[in-house]
Parts: sequence; structure tokens; C-alpha cells
Amino acid sequence: MAGARESPRMPQFVVVGHDAPTTPDFELNDLPGAGRLDLLCRCITSVLLLSHSIRTDATAHLVLQDEFTLRFEGASLRNLRPDERSTAALVRTALQQRAEAVGHVPVETSPGVFLSRTGLATTLDDVADGRTVVQLHEDGTPLAESTLPTESVFVLSDHHDFTSDETALLEKRRAKRVSVGPKPLHADQAITVAHNYLDTDGYASY
Amino acid sequence: MAGARESPRMPQFVVVGHDAPTTPDFELNDLPGAGRLDLLCRCITSVLLLSHSIRTDATAHLVLQDEFTLRFEGASLRNLRPDERSTAALVRTALQQRAEAVGHVPVETSPGVFLSRTGLATTLDDVADGRTVVQLHEDGTPLAESTLPTESVFVLSDHHDFTSDETALLEKRRAKRVSVGPKPLHADQAITVAHNYLDTDGYASY
Repeated sequence: MAGARESPRMPQFVVVGHDAPTTPDFELNDLPGAGRLDLLCRCITSVLLLSHSIRTDATAHLVLQDEFTLRFEGASLRNLRPDERSTAALVRTALQQRAEAVGHVPVETSPGVFLSRTGLATTLDDVADGRTVVQLHEDGTPLAESTLPTESVFVLSDHHDFTSDETALLEKRRAKRVSVGPKPLHADQAITVAHNYLDTDGYASY
Repeated sequence: MAGARESPRMPQFVVVGHDAPTTPDFELNDLPGAGRLDLLCRCITSVLLLSHSIRTDATAHLVLQDEFTLRFEGASLRNLRPDERSTAALVRTALQQRAEAVGHVPVETSPGVFLSRTGLATTLDDVADGRTVVQLHEDGTPLAESTLPTESVFVLSDHHDFTSDETALLEKRRAKRVSVGPKPLHADQAITVAHNYLDTDGYASY
């Protein structure tokens, strides 16, 4: 994913989809049954969409079963709409081109959407690159008591907890554990809260 | 909607769906084309769902073209899942029973879901009832600088602005204008931010 290194965006969100599809043969009529693609699509739109516009400075990285990573770049993204189904169709379009994603070279499968054959470790290596890595986690420091740079890399898991291997990857990169509140939120809701924290300068003012 | 008055819940969210369907003959495969039902369904789940549980103290009121109101009560709700399509199916099930919603008497169309033939004015009369009414609005006081009781009634519009008639209804009830941030969010994202404000005691601590 050389692109991420050449043109760093801020902030970045990495979402780990443990059961996410890696082939395009899933049903758009049953996104929960497609490895909770409903949740993963909401994560993508939570990272990138405002009302009537796109967050051009944000990037979403969706790790699909540690086999592929789909990168959605706000700066060049087109055709992303707010509903789950049309977002899932973008994922399907990307996976229809999976044979072209060879090694770590990303393929642009639709404008602003890049597919590469990389798992979480490589994605973190490419994206973190000197930035603060933040693990959104129930047991972390409250967001309001944290000081996080806008360039942070937020890493979230889907409906499953991080595996011990994934936790080890995060610890190796000295990820800060930050909590978005006392109640356990869905990953897409946590992304919205993290964006709001950055948008308001840590709730200070705007 | 006597139920809302007899057993007040906290907090309450009223979402105005200007183009929302009022009959069950919409396509589950095209929720954006069904009056942006995708957005309205995400609003319902944002009000009521946590990761792996329901916010039993929250209630969502979805006003459908000022003709019907659908109430989702966290305390008794069942079968609400996080994806848009299954939530839209609950809306369709409710509208299939629209003939039974006579006058202002609500019909329980599935566990915890109530349909009544009431528009925004009556819904606000029933729900507000001495509570603080909050209009989430880009030009309002920043949330972090506001002091809002948990029992507040948050009122939001869909992808359209409030009409002048709706604004007049809100002004009549002395609604506070509160902004969730400097960037315009989707209604469902604004609900998530408002919940987070309440969850964390106004970002103070938890």
C-alpha cells in the first residue's frame, strides 16, 4: 500500500473484519449473513460520510479475514452512498477484481477504493508509520481524558474481540487503549464518537 | 400515545421522516428510494442498540410524513437487529397493520413497536410533557457547553431541514438548539453523539 505512505491522510481508521467476505459471492440481501458486512459497511460510511459530503481527509481500511485489505480514501472516493447495500456493492465490485491484487500492490477497484492482498500486520506497518496508534477498547482511558493527534490511527474490531495475535500486533506498536464511553458501542458508533472528539478538538470548543 | 405518558422513558428521540413510507409497499432492496428509509432505520438502531444489547431506557419515535408515528420502546423491544434491512422489515410489518391504528390509540405491531395515527405536533405533546426539548441543529450551542438532563427529548430531521411549520412547533415548546459539532452529521450519527454525551455525563467522566 505505497499510496498510504506517499500521501498520508488524517485520521485513519482500521477495522478488522474477522468473518468478512473475501470473495464476491455473497448475498446483498443478507449482509449480516455475509460475515456481518452490514456492520463493516456502516463502519466505512461512519469514517467517510458527513451529511451531504465526504470527509476528504479521512481514510478507512477494512481488513478482510487477514487476507485482503480494502482502503477507502476520502480524497479521491466516489460513489459512496450512506446505505449499507450500496456500500456492500462497492465491496463486491472490489472482490470481483481480487485476482488482480497481487502481492502488496493495491488495485483501484473503483474511484478511491483500493484492494491489496495484505493482512492486519502489513496494513498497520503501512498506515502507522510514526503515527499514534489507538485501540478503541472498553477498558481504555476515557476519550475525554485523552490527548490524541488528528493523525491518529484508530484500530477497531468488528463484532468479535481482537484475537491474542491481533492484540500482540497492537502492543508491539504501543497502541494506546482508549474508551469511547462506559457502554459498549458498535464499531461504527465508536467511529462516529472518535470523529466527534477530533472534530471538536477533544470536546474543548469549536 | 398514552403509553409514553404512563411510563416515561429516558431519553427520547423524535426523528421526522418527511418522505418516509406510510404504506407497506416499498422495496426492501431499495431503502434509499423508500423515502430514505435506510437513514431512518439507522436512526432507530442508533437510539436503541448497544453492542450485543438494547438501551432499555431509550425510546425512538419515527414520524412518518406527519401522518403516523412509530414508537420503538427499549424496555419491551424485541427482534431489533443492527442492519438496515431487518429494521425496515419491522417498519413494513407495522405499516401492514396501519388500518388498525385509529385515532391516537397506538397499536403494538411487534413486541415494543407501536404505531399510531399521529403527526409531529401530537407526538411532541405526548412526549415532551414537562421535559427539556432539544433540537439538534448545526447552528446551536455546542453540546459540550450545554447542560441537558438525561430525560431530554431530542428532535431531529431526516436528510431535509425542518420545515417552517415544524420549526414553529419546536419554538412553541421552547426547544433548545444544540449542535453536535462543527461538521454537519447525518441524523443517525448525531443520535450516537448525543447518547455518548449522556453516557459520559456531558463528557465529564464515567
